[in-house]
Amino acid sequence: MKHLNTPEEIATFISSMDTFLLDVDGVVFLGTQLIPGVVEALAHLRSLGKRIFFVTNNSLKSRTSYVEKFSAKGIHGVAKEEVFSAPYAAACYLSDIGFPKEKRVYVMGADGVVEELREQGIQACGGMDDKDLAFSGMDDLHRIQPDPSIGAVLTAFDAHINYPKLAKAHTYLQDPSVLFIATNPDVADPIGTQTFPAAGSMYQPLIKSTGRHPIIVGKPHETMLRVILAKYQLDPTRTCMVGDRLDTDVLFGQRGGCRTMAVLTGVTTESMLNQAEVAKRPDYVISSLGLMR
Amino acid sequence: MKHLNTPEEIATFISSMDTFLLDVDGVVFLGTQLIPGVVEALAHLRSLGKRIFFVTNNSLKSRTSYVEKFSAKGIHGVAKEEVFSAPYAAACYLSDIGFPKEKRVYVMGADGVVEELREQGIQACGGMDDKDLAFSGMDDLHRIQPDPSIGAVLTAFDAHINYPKLAKAHTYLQDPSVLFIATNPDVADPIGTQTFPAAGSMYQPLIKSTGRHPIIVGKPHETMLRVILAKYQLDPTRTCMVGDRLDTDVLFGQRGGCRTMAVLTGVTTESMLNQAEVAKRPDYVISSLGLMR
Repeated sequence: MKHLNTPEEIATFISSMDTFLLDVDGVVFLGTQLIPGVVEALAHLRSLGKRIFFVTNNSLKSRTSYVEKFSAKGIHGVAKEEVFSAPYAAACYLSDIGFPKEKRVYVMGADGVVEELREQGIQACGGMDDKDLAFSGMDDLHRIQPDPSIGAVLTAFDAHINYPKLAKAHTYLQDPSVLFIATNPDVADPIGTQTFPAAGSMYQPLIKSTGRHPIIVGKPHETMLRVILAKYQLDPTRTCMVGDRLDTDVLFGQRGGCRTMAVLTGVTTESMLNQAEVAKRPDYVISSLGLMR
Repeated sequence: MKHLNTPEEIATFISSMDTFLLDVDGVVFLGTQLIPGVVEALAHLRSLGKRIFFVTNNSLKSRTSYVEKFSAKGIHGVAKEEVFSAPYAAACYLSDIGFPKEKRVYVMGADGVVEELREQGIQACGGMDDKDLAFSGMDDLHRIQPDPSIGAVLTAFDAHINYPKLAKAHTYLQDPSVLFIATNPDVADPIGTQTFPAAGSMYQPLIKSTGRHPIIVGKPHETMLRVILAKYQLDPTRTCMVGDRLDTDVLFGQRGGCRTMAVLTGVTTESMLNQAEVAKRPDYVISSLGLMR
């Protein structure tokens, strides 16, 4: 675990890498705010010919929305192909396993998830269409029936979680051939000085009610990294995963044989790094991505 | 495990008991329908001077609502004191431990829960007041702040579960002095030929997001049984808990030193009884409460 403090240490580190995989929340943004210096750092890395990919578990947004958010905040010129999100990883996963074209994915999550699935040619339902499903009494439940057109249930962060959605997902999952997939395992996300329940908490009712466990495609699951490394033929020894979490970002980088770097602008603090098992520590530590310039 | 089949076996069993503790869902009702013969069976037991209590984990209704439901379905003359529900048990639990009068309980559940708390002189908030809390974006979360007036979070079956409620409960539970209580642990309830997520599934997101585990007051937790046995000075050896579930009803009766009986009109089937460990089997089995006449 090498701390990069001086401009020389930082420059040496940068020159040893070709590609940077950057987590977004806690690395580029904190909530809706850009972390100071990040725009300049990204420009600096690009001016040196480094390749940059954004790798995020955030399951609210599609990659297109990310590009728009970046641009609105002053990070211009990011291509959609440079963004890898958990919803995209879910769509890639379903494509990879040959999810049948005639089947539909029931989404408990935001429209960004539905959008990514449809872009990969996968039929999706649920999502925001089920946002306002009202529950007026137990008789409503008789309308929720098994549906043979559903081939998978995909859960993500869903700020509009409701009982009819849980009841539908539960019903579909009674068929063991229906896949159970979750975008990411993060149980709580920091927002400002507080934390709030995250995508990894939202499928817990279904685990209990069905006795089934989802396949998780986001970090630290290797799906996204495998896709990136293969697609762009990256050398993992010259690729650095930069993140603010040991349990997702650093583990994800380590599983892919990449170099790993922790920033201290998000969840992980210096003392958490020191208390972590040696095998779980990153190769590098820098206080902020904003210093990489 | 003695099967009661003939009128003589049933009569002998009834004469050996003074008090019957009856689970409601799966024993008296199946969904909204009365199980055949139950009205007559209850009248028969009462005519023999037997004491009857209804003991239910259902956390939607207050005891008053139960009395009304019974009456509407032809079961007349049930006193509120003869109904013990998980929300009532939660209220008794909070009274027993001297929950401070100046503190409030945040309820993630139905109005029946709020009603029971208030009847015991406990301040409650949340419940249906939070039913329509909308979520319009992450900025909403800044309005959800720790609240020192909250002394407990109580979760129950909540058909209007939503993200702002989960976020509030999560926020309050960050204070370790705030109690975490759940009405009952049932993870899925049968409705018709299907099952649906139940109260025991609904607090799972909070377990994950906070790392805390609730105190569960409903069956098979002993709170309700302790209250009934003590309040009416019942002899457990002449008290029979009648239910359709081994993991809640039968275990609950066994923990209280009562006799136990399974009916086959709900969750448990004959083959499930035979596959159960000997220690978990009930003392008696009858195909339906409706035969006890």
